[in-house]
Amino acid sequence: MKQYLEINEWSIVEEGFHREHNKISESVFSLGNGRFGQRANFEEDFTGETMQGNYVAGVYYPDKTRVGWWKNGYPEYFAKVLNATNWVGIKVEVEGENFDLEHCEVKEFTRELNMREGYLLRSFVAKLKNGKEIKVIAQRFCSIVNDDLGAIRYSVTPLNFSGSIKFTPYLDGDIKNQDANYDEKFWDEVSKTADAGSAYITLKTRKTGFEVCTGMRFSVSQNGQTINFESKPIAREKFVANEIIVQAQQGEETVLYKYAAIVSSLNHAPADLLAACKKGLDLAERKGYETLLQEQAAAWATKWEESDIVIEGDAAAQQAIRFNIFQLNQTYTGEDERLNIGPKGFTGEKYGGSTYWDTEAYCIPFYLATADQKVAKNLLLYRHKQLDRAIENAGKLGFKDGAALYPMVTMNGEECHNEWEITFEEIHRNGAIAYAIYDYIRYTGDESYLTEAGAEVLAGIARFWAQRVNWSEDRQKYVMLGVTGPNEYENNVNNNWYTNYIASWCLEYAAYALNYVNGQTPDKYAALVSKINFKTTELEKWAHIVENMHYPEDKKLGVYLQQDGYLDKEQILVKDLPAADRPLNQKWSWDRILRSCFIKQADVLQGLFFFEDKFDVETIRRNFDFYEPRTVHESSLSPCVHAILAAKLGDEKRAYEFYLRTSRLDLDDYNNDTEDGCHTTSMAGTWMSVVQGFGGMRVRNGQLHFAPFIPGKWNSFSFKVGFRGALLKVKTHRNGTSIQNQSNKPISLFVYEQEYTVGANSEVEIKKEDLVSSK
Amino acid sequence: MKQYLEINEWSIVEEGFHREHNKISESVFSLGNGRFGQRANFEEDFTGETMQGNYVAGVYYPDKTRVGWWKNGYPEYFAKVLNATNWVGIKVEVEGENFDLEHCEVKEFTRELNMREGYLLRSFVAKLKNGKEIKVIAQRFCSIVNDDLGAIRYSVTPLNFSGSIKFTPYLDGDIKNQDANYDEKFWDEVSKTADAGSAYITLKTRKTGFEVCTGMRFSVSQNGQTINFESKPIAREKFVANEIIVQAQQGEETVLYKYAAIVSSLNHAPADLLAACKKGLDLAERKGYETLLQEQAAAWATKWEESDIVIEGDAAAQQAIRFNIFQLNQTYTGEDERLNIGPKGFTGEKYGGSTYWDTEAYCIPFYLATADQKVAKNLLLYRHKQLDRAIENAGKLGFKDGAALYPMVTMNGEECHNEWEITFEEIHRNGAIAYAIYDYIRYTGDESYLTEAGAEVLAGIARFWAQRVNWSEDRQKYVMLGVTGPNEYENNVNNNWYTNYIASWCLEYAAYALNYVNGQTPDKYAALVSKINFKTTELEKWAHIVENMHYPEDKKLGVYLQQDGYLDKEQILVKDLPAADRPLNQKWSWDRILRSCFIKQADVLQGLFFFEDKFDVETIRRNFDFYEPRTVHESSLSPCVHAILAAKLGDEKRAYEFYLRTSRLDLDDYNNDTEDGCHTTSMAGTWMSVVQGFGGMRVRNGQLHFAPFIPGKWNSFSFKVGFRGALLKVKTHRNGTSIQNQSNKPISLFVYEQEYTVGANSEVEIKKEDLVSSK
Repeated sequence: MKQYLEINEWSIVEEGFHREHNKISESVFSLGNGRFGQRANFEEDFTGETMQGNYVAGVYYPDKTRVGWWKNGYPEYFAKVLNATNWVGIKVEVEGENFDLEHCEVKEFTRELNMREGYLLRSFVAKLKNGKEIKVIAQRFCSIVNDDLGAIRYSVTPLNFSGSIKFTPYLDGDIKNQDANYDEKFWDEVSKTADAGSAYITLKTRKTGFEVCTGMRFSVSQNGQTINFESKPIAREKFVANEIIVQAQQGEETVLYKYAAIVSSLNHAPADLLAACKKGLDLAERKGYETLLQEQAAAWATKWEESDIVIEGDAAAQQAIRFNIFQLNQTYTGEDERLNIGPKGFTGEKYGGSTYWDTEAYCIPFYLATADQKVAKNLLLYRHKQLDRAIENAGKLGFKDGAALYPMVTMNGEECHNEWEITFEEIHRNGAIAYAIYDYIRYTGDESYLTEAGAEVLAGIARFWAQRVNWSEDRQKYVMLGVTGPNEYENNVNNNWYTNYIASWCLEYAAYALNYVNGQTPDKYAALVSKINFKTTELEKWAHIVENMHYPEDKKLGVYLQQDGYLDKEQILVKDLPAADRPLNQKWSWDRILRSCFIKQADVLQGLFFFEDKFDVETIRRNFDFYEPRTVHESSLSPCVHAILAAKLGDEKRAYEFYLRTSRLDLDDYNNDTEDGCHTTSMAGTWMSVVQGFGGMRVRNGQLHFAPFIPGKWNSFSFKVGFRGALLKVKTHRNGTSIQNQSNKPISLFVYEQEYTVGANSEVEIKKEDLVSSK
Repeated sequence: MKQYLEINEWSIVEEGFHREHNKISESVFSLGNGRFGQRANFEEDFTGETMQGNYVAGVYYPDKTRVGWWKNGYPEYFAKVLNATNWVGIKVEVEGENFDLEHCEVKEFTRELNMREGYLLRSFVAKLKNGKEIKVIAQRFCSIVNDDLGAIRYSVTPLNFSGSIKFTPYLDGDIKNQDANYDEKFWDEVSKTADAGSAYITLKTRKTGFEVCTGMRFSVSQNGQTINFESKPIAREKFVANEIIVQAQQGEETVLYKYAAIVSSLNHAPADLLAACKKGLDLAERKGYETLLQEQAAAWATKWEESDIVIEGDAAAQQAIRFNIFQLNQTYTGEDERLNIGPKGFTGEKYGGSTYWDTEAYCIPFYLATADQKVAKNLLLYRHKQLDRAIENAGKLGFKDGAALYPMVTMNGEECHNEWEITFEEIHRNGAIAYAIYDYIRYTGDESYLTEAGAEVLAGIARFWAQRVNWSEDRQKYVMLGVTGPNEYENNVNNNWYTNYIASWCLEYAAYALNYVNGQTPDKYAALVSKINFKTTELEKWAHIVENMHYPEDKKLGVYLQQDGYLDKEQILVKDLPAADRPLNQKWSWDRILRSCFIKQADVLQGLFFFEDKFDVETIRRNFDFYEPRTVHESSLSPCVHAILAAKLGDEKRAYEFYLRTSRLDLDDYNNDTEDGCHTTSMAGTWMSVVQGFGGMRVRNGQLHFAPFIPGKWNSFSFKVGFRGALLKVKTHRNGTSIQNQSNKPISLFVYEQEYTVGANSEVEIKKEDLVSSK
């Protein structure tokens, strides 16, 4: 855990240059616009701690699998989000010395991620080895208005001299992935041009053949006036640049404006890429930097208007939730159904592929409440389109007759992970994909989705579970052997409670879905039955499994057991672990972690969270009280679920603690891994921890329920949710809760199980004394 | 399974060229002399299916570990036996065409591994693409008399032409390992010379700095007369050769004799290597090929005299056991305490390092009975020397206070395997290392070994187990979680019966050993206690564990359970598996194997075999009858244990079936993997299956016991064992058993629990009617 960043409600601020944490800062200060994004690498050369990262959404490379010992069933390739052309680079030479902060004395350093307006700003005074002092202010953004554009304002002011400054703005496509299995480079050059004042480079990914064209133009101003300059084009393998030498006067600012356009063959025919790129740059030049920046601020203002969560009285909490929302909005806009939400967004390479179960389990609730219904639906359809691949994937593992196993990691539906304990065994992911369908329908009421696509997906998933369990003669129950649950600190366990539970639930829900389709649209049901060769006996088999599934539990303790034999472990609590031992995944050998009782991520609790209405509060409390003290939260996906359950249980201390942990995970580098990138998908979990946790929001029988619960430190908190045409702003303060309906659609809802109707564009104020806690 | 090789009691014979199986043949026809060895690659160029392989004992390379996802505790390097300079190569050009069997019509092809005399012979007629027909006879051997020498007699007879033949004998050090994690080459050139008639090349391994000098000389004869020839030296990077052009007459034989010497810095100072190499070649030239070959035959005759097993009436069985004994003798001579027995000997690269638990569990009994006592002792001392590394290794996994975990795979004591489920969890290896000490002392009576080294090793091992178990509050027993047993088709299981049992046994035996040392030599005990900081409370802790260990069992079935929950698996028998599904490890995905009930290798049965005297016969029978039908024997180490137990239980059918399976594993390619190399260490298990299986040999209370059991197909079988100064030839025929004492030391022993005394150089004949079966 590191707390070197300043607390500020609207910005992330680094005061003073924390060289040793620069890779963390590069992750945290990342920018993106859904289409492309980047780590907060410096524009100028930097030889200190850094990990270069520029990424283009949907552009991936299937890197040949690397393992120590091949196991049958492994995928041939691991699809990776690719490090792409670096468009931010500006080499700066001051009186002949290459400017590199690693070799400078640095003063007055400030780095700011301005979340309100959506830009990154860096300013500092640097003294070079040749004694020259310069003040630098570098500002840039990835436009969310014109999502193929980025812009940089890079200013240098000589402080103790007048002399020459050479700027070399460049586009560098000669990059490699840090995460490359065989140290190969993944891009080939297609074409490039470098002229005075502009340059373009088009690269193509090997194997997948994605083409990305990146272009740049620039201008220079001094004393606020655009100046003419000599510009010497440079081109070499996968690299284009321009050299500009200007004379700068002591105390006077020289500004380089650099515009970049990034367009890919996902959105343009390859032959049109250059033209599209130039068109983008024409627009950028026409508008100019300041206008682009103003438009950016305005667009972000709208985003905040839609999705902000306001917490009064607790700046750290406020900053954190905004950081989470900001990063989510930077990563995925929901406009392109081919895209999904990578676990690190545009902030790092780790974890490769873009799609994990995180999307279904954590992100969909966020988009359901804060975006148009089609965003969540696009995410569901993404999986429906990949159903054939999921069936293929299951086939590779020996399943048949239409059984579908969705991949653990994917870009295109093919499995591309290669640890057997995860690839083959972390099959609960299939359950989350089914759950997301349920969640979507529960929230939107759009039950027709079952007919459109949902029932087919559910049938494939149910078939998988029906084949994956086996009948234990010994127990006279169905068991599920050799799985890894959400808690990845157990591998190859038997009867993971969560997996058994969600599998059984899937079988029930799939049966419901098929019956629903049959009841509503018998012709479509007949078509589906014929398409997937469905047999009624399958429903009987599913029902038999549902009735006879084994669920490990300990009756004495009154808790469900994470898996068979969990109580054989030495029961130590996290609080008794030496601080030096954590995070366990960096300090302990793997076998030690596996045989310990320590939990990476809520597992039984994840199940209780998903299926909360099926358990009484005391059962949830007993399980929470048992598992929480054993959980180390070394998965980013863990604390949010704990925060929500703690809030439900009225455990303010823990709810607040877990809220801080989930929301400030990256800001405070809780797990000592933010340098690899931010934990983007878990940020949606942070949003849930406020809305479902402190707000107590649930959907039951097609209606919203709230049970607000305000931490002692907060004066108020408010969030917005859209629900079936209504748009609600829910604000809880110390004296009660107000619900403002900002739409034209009246809505009736429940607060602490009492029904209220909130008229169109009206507000209901519920005083604290009127609130009846159900707890 | 493939049966393309001929049955012959003294030779392995391939009639007709089986191109498609050439890599299998290269493994099976391998040669070695304990110091170096090689696959049966052709001398001339061959572009068909081949895997080049020349290996020098003790010369290894620590290849940087490759894994898909790094886990804490993994070793940095995987030490590999290295493919070394190819010294057999002779390029042959016939009237200008490069001779390559892949592009020839081949007739009258015979390949023979003559085990009686220790050479490899190949003869055939080949028609080249240019129409020239030649008869080739190639013979070679690795001298066991001068163990730095190899020799080749390569003869070519033109059948349908007279013309030029160009021979290019060469030494090629520009080879790479097939098993290289990052496609690196592992050798650097140190020096080379090529003169007319001779050439030398010295290479050095990267990182480890082993130097190996290889030299060659050669002569040519026609019509039995040595001829003069022009010889053109060739040298290029890591390659030296000579070109020789001779004119050959139709029907007349031209013979190239090539002598090679292979010397390494393990046995010579680097500066002396070239001189040592030349000295070897001087000797070879002085003796000449025929003398070397005669000496080889004589030396092998002696080896056979010492270690042959004769089976009359069953040529396949006879051939097979000789093949196993032959390969064992080729691999390890026991003379060099720095060496150990690689699982593939000199026949392939797979499995890397040289030392596995195979040595202790399978090989030591063979050497105890067939070699000088010092051979087995050297193998024990090898581990004692590596105790510090074993303590280090345990330390990396979080163990402390002198706990020792021996590596799964090693060259120098460091762990170098990198699958977590094996590296970290297949810890039963520690038990086998303790068991070997017990086995050695039981056989030799040399209890002083405990004081010399054994007790210290046992204490380290016991400390590991004492820390590795944990107290289960739930069971009120000690449990051992997260292990992989000998059956590697289960990973990360809890309470593997075998591991729990041997762990507990180790604790008892270590306590015994320490008490023994204390009783015999209190001063040495005090020194040991001080050296390892031993505390008496440790003995108490060990005793508590021994008394309270959990052993999974099913009382209803009356069997021990391989691990907790084994009976939850779907219980299918191997006989009901479709043939197309086998071997499972090539046909099923890994997860499917893991959750099936199928067993790779005896696991409970391995324990019953080791500790047979602690169980009654009916218990062994029930477990055998339960587990045998579930075992697929996809580990080479499996069938021998089954053969021994089946023989003990009087189950002739299965004893014979498993004997064939273990003994003909490579000859018949049972597991479809002989192309990677032979299963050398399991060959000692084959020896056990005859001596301990059919011979029923056991040691109890310092005396030999026999319980011979002859399969119906055999007329007789006989084997030799040395025991505490006596040398016995035990021959069982249909009418009884004779025991000949070929030593000057009288011995009393038991046959079917009846005591006999066999005088010095005497024989006892026990008629069948006098045999009382204890079964």
